[in-house]
Amino acid sequence: MNYGQVLREPTRVKLPSNAPTVNGVRMDVFQELVGSVSSNPGRGLAEFGVATRWTGGTRSSSRVESWSLGGQARPRFFEIASDEPAELCGTESAPNPQELLMAAINACMMVGYVALCAAEGIELESIEIRTAGTLDLRGFLGLDESVKPGYEDVSTIVKIKGTGTEQQFLEIHRKVQATSPNYSNLTTAVACRPALVVE
Amino acid sequence: MNYGQVLREPTRVKLPSNAPTVNGVRMDVFQELVGSVSSNPGRGLAEFGVATRWTGGTRSSSRVESWSLGGQARPRFFEIASDEPAELCGTESAPNPQELLMAAINACMMVGYVALCAAEGIELESIEIRTAGTLDLRGFLGLDESVKPGYEDVSTIVKIKGTGTEQQFLEIHRKVQATSPNYSNLTTAVACRPALVVE
Repeated sequence: MNYGQVLREPTRVKLPSNAPTVNGVRMDVFQELVGSVSSNPGRGLAEFGVATRWTGGTRSSSRVESWSLGGQARPRFFEIASDEPAELCGTESAPNPQELLMAAINACMMVGYVALCAAEGIELESIEIRTAGTLDLRGFLGLDESVKPGYEDVSTIVKIKGTGTEQQFLEIHRKVQATSPNYSNLTTAVACRPALVVE
Repeated sequence: MNYGQVLREPTRVKLPSNAPTVNGVRMDVFQELVGSVSSNPGRGLAEFGVATRWTGGTRSSSRVESWSLGGQARPRFFEIASDEPAELCGTESAPNPQELLMAAINACMMVGYVALCAAEGIELESIEIRTAGTLDLRGFLGLDESVKPGYEDVSTIVKIKGTGTEQQFLEIHRKVQATSPNYSNLTTAVACRPALVVE
């Protein structure tokens, strides 16, 4: 049973045999991106979006159909299912929103470590990022307005192995915290004023 | 091709034929949860965690193996894949971290609307939540320290259809913003001090 699937076989990037990669990252693509955004910041405006529909009970399905870079829309086709554990009234058919959030943070930081290592010629053997946090459900359940519904804090441990020195990895670790979009989205306030349409 | 899968068939919740549900939400389970957490807040401490490993290039796989409620660990088995679009040096094999984040936010808010409607006896026909945002990649690429790597803001539109009045839905909309864990995690700062282990 699959809780999510690729809706259409995506266009695979074909690596020319001579494409230089470090840690599986195409350095020509990376350098082109850096050059392009440096010379014209508008080319670095990346818009992402997701449409989520209710699929019964605590289940939902989030669909990704496009993104855009520098104002140019590009198709994408993914579906991300979510559900809650039985104890939280769900049917346990998919990861819950908390787990998707932590996957989003870890996966984003991961790209940071890999790209920064690639840029410095550090070859990686492995990276593992663990994130955990505890919600006080009095917030979600509306039982106590003084209880924050989200996390006060989360704990994250990054284990890294590769050809870098301890000092290089520490510096990259610092840079990831300064530049990771989802680390920023978690650790700073993002403005949001959801609009409601009653149909 | 699947970008993620359920690693083991989860225990399905078997609904007894007489279990009262509204919008597919087991009201007995919901009321038991509310009662349990009201009388003993420790029972409402819900710990979630995810371990993410690098799977090459910009790809990662996040594994969920357990969660705990009120200190009691419960097994769970899900895997969440992530990758980047080709233009961001990826192979487009899975949703990217931004899309996982938005799915996490929308799915969490969705549970809020469904549960609050269920608690008020409002029967839902449909809910759709769309979230979108634009990153300025100068932040991620480290090209300008004054550029926030995450979102300054995101836009969210909620479309809801059911037996509630406009006034009821507006009140629920307000409550979701006050109680949704991931809405809180996005719109307030969550503390995180990632530890680094160089192996």
